[in-house]
Amino acid sequence: MSAVERDVIVSEVGPRDGLQSIKRSMPTETKIEWIKGLASAGLPEIEVGSFVSPKLLPQMADCAEVVAAATEIPGITVLALVPNLRGAQAAFDARSHKINMPVSASQAHSKANINRTVEEAVEDVARVHALRQEFSADYHPGIEVGISTAFGCTIEGPVSEDWVIRLAEMLVEAGADSVGLSDTTGYGNPAQVKRLFKRLKSEIGGKAGGAHFHNTRGQGLGNVVAALEVGVTTFDSSQAGLGGCPYAPGATGNIVTEDLVFMLEAMGLKTGIDIEKLIAARSTILSGLPGEALYGHVQDAGLPKGFRYA
Amino acid sequence: MSAVERDVIVSEVGPRDGLQSIKRSMPTETKIEWIKGLASAGLPEIEVGSFVSPKLLPQMADCAEVVAAATEIPGITVLALVPNLRGAQAAFDARSHKINMPVSASQAHSKANINRTVEEAVEDVARVHALRQEFSADYHPGIEVGISTAFGCTIEGPVSEDWVIRLAEMLVEAGADSVGLSDTTGYGNPAQVKRLFKRLKSEIGGKAGGAHFHNTRGQGLGNVVAALEVGVTTFDSSQAGLGGCPYAPGATGNIVTEDLVFMLEAMGLKTGIDIEKLIAARSTILSGLPGEALYGHVQDAGLPKGFRYA
Repeated sequence: MSAVERDVIVSEVGPRDGLQSIKRSMPTETKIEWIKGLASAGLPEIEVGSFVSPKLLPQMADCAEVVAAATEIPGITVLALVPNLRGAQAAFDARSHKINMPVSASQAHSKANINRTVEEAVEDVARVHALRQEFSADYHPGIEVGISTAFGCTIEGPVSEDWVIRLAEMLVEAGADSVGLSDTTGYGNPAQVKRLFKRLKSEIGGKAGGAHFHNTRGQGLGNVVAALEVGVTTFDSSQAGLGGCPYAPGATGNIVTEDLVFMLEAMGLKTGIDIEKLIAARSTILSGLPGEALYGHVQDAGLPKGFRYA
Repeated sequence: MSAVERDVIVSEVGPRDGLQSIKRSMPTETKIEWIKGLASAGLPEIEVGSFVSPKLLPQMADCAEVVAAATEIPGITVLALVPNLRGAQAAFDARSHKINMPVSASQAHSKANINRTVEEAVEDVARVHALRQEFSADYHPGIEVGISTAFGCTIEGPVSEDWVIRLAEMLVEAGADSVGLSDTTGYGNPAQVKRLFKRLKSEIGGKAGGAHFHNTRGQGLGNVVAALEVGVTTFDSSQAGLGGCPYAPGATGNIVTEDLVFMLEAMGLKTGIDIEKLIAARSTILSGLPGEALYGHVQDAGLPKGFRYA
């Protein structure tokens, strides 16, 4: 969607993963202002909301409106999370550029989360793929799947790596354009990250998707370094690590976009993102959610003396 | 010093680097209790204090007493930081197992810190080496040098990588047993870490020392992953990330021992450290420094379900 050349795609998930973890709702106009701020900082891709039942997540009730506004912003790819066929229909109606369908590797997590087996969730991806075929020639939404609990499950514990890779193949067969791996639980470690993404690439090649890491145990950027080692080039992150629980100091949610972008640029990897503009967008979060806990380091420490972008 | 087999040596610097960054002094008996707790958690190496002028750092005035008590604890290697010949004399008198001499790669930092040029600091290492030769056959203290500001300087900005490597060679010639690299300023990035440690090893071989990272910009564990990639096996860290400034939320000091050990063990790298016992030792810090800000993630998030040590 953008003319900027980038070595790494940073995909901002704060407006979805961050906001859905916070009980209060950010006003719709603030969400849109925030997304505009992120876009003008150079974020190439933004997951702006989730098409789920407003009874379950009232914070996401305005998703169609947010998608509609976000797709008007030039230069960004707009994603929405959809848990099922109904959500996909809503996302397609709203003309989201891409949808993100999470499919859990853990049966227990899948049942607890969406009351469906993993195999049923794969069938849903096939149905969503069939649905998109019905759309007219001027709209080709992408279908990205993130395998959640790919690195371990809080209910089941360790998850078989063979099974994660097999599931990725099933998802490609079902019609996913890309399949990434999500450390939903913050269980992942760098050695495991290297193993799994290496196997993912060797099994599904160009359809291997990005990495979605949480920083629950402080391992987020370490896992990014490991993923970079095996050629991963797309990373989800959340501005200010939004979604961390304010009752557990340090128990942050997603990896922090600001710290991630600093790391990548310092390493010589172009992201197309301006760190100062990105930091400036933090104030919009607080205008919509006064007093919310924000995380990250670079906004306090500042950029190193003599710092140069890649 | 220990019979436990370890893939990685975690060298605890909290009682030195952590405590010297905090204005208040921890009572001597609490320091010793804390060091005992760290030792019983399995930490193989502990930097227990700094032989500096008590006018400059009154928190370290009891260093000789702490070293004496720590060297009575079985199974640990006791280190003390010394800035100069006088400090080394005091450390040798106290029978510290090893000393750690920081030598800055940045002239500006060296002048500001110890009012000596880098070359003069190298000469000090040679003097300290000569001093240790005078000791009797039953005491062979190790001399470790950490090159501070190796990844950049808050005064000078970027530091020449060629110069850092040349300095490491000079330090080996001066008599250092090992030369490690310190990211004093939290400027380092994983790509730079890989480059520098790779060169260090190829230039000084078995005398290449460990990595000392600060987490100022959230890059600490990412830098550890990068260093592991090029064979570094010794890492400094501080329990609870002690030394972070309470006035800058998130601006932590050293990398957090708890999170580091969790990462290493999860990766399958034996540290010999019991994470639960380590976490238990945090309470001693608070008994000596009530209300002090403690950092880290693992102590809040807990170990993953089904977690196994390496």
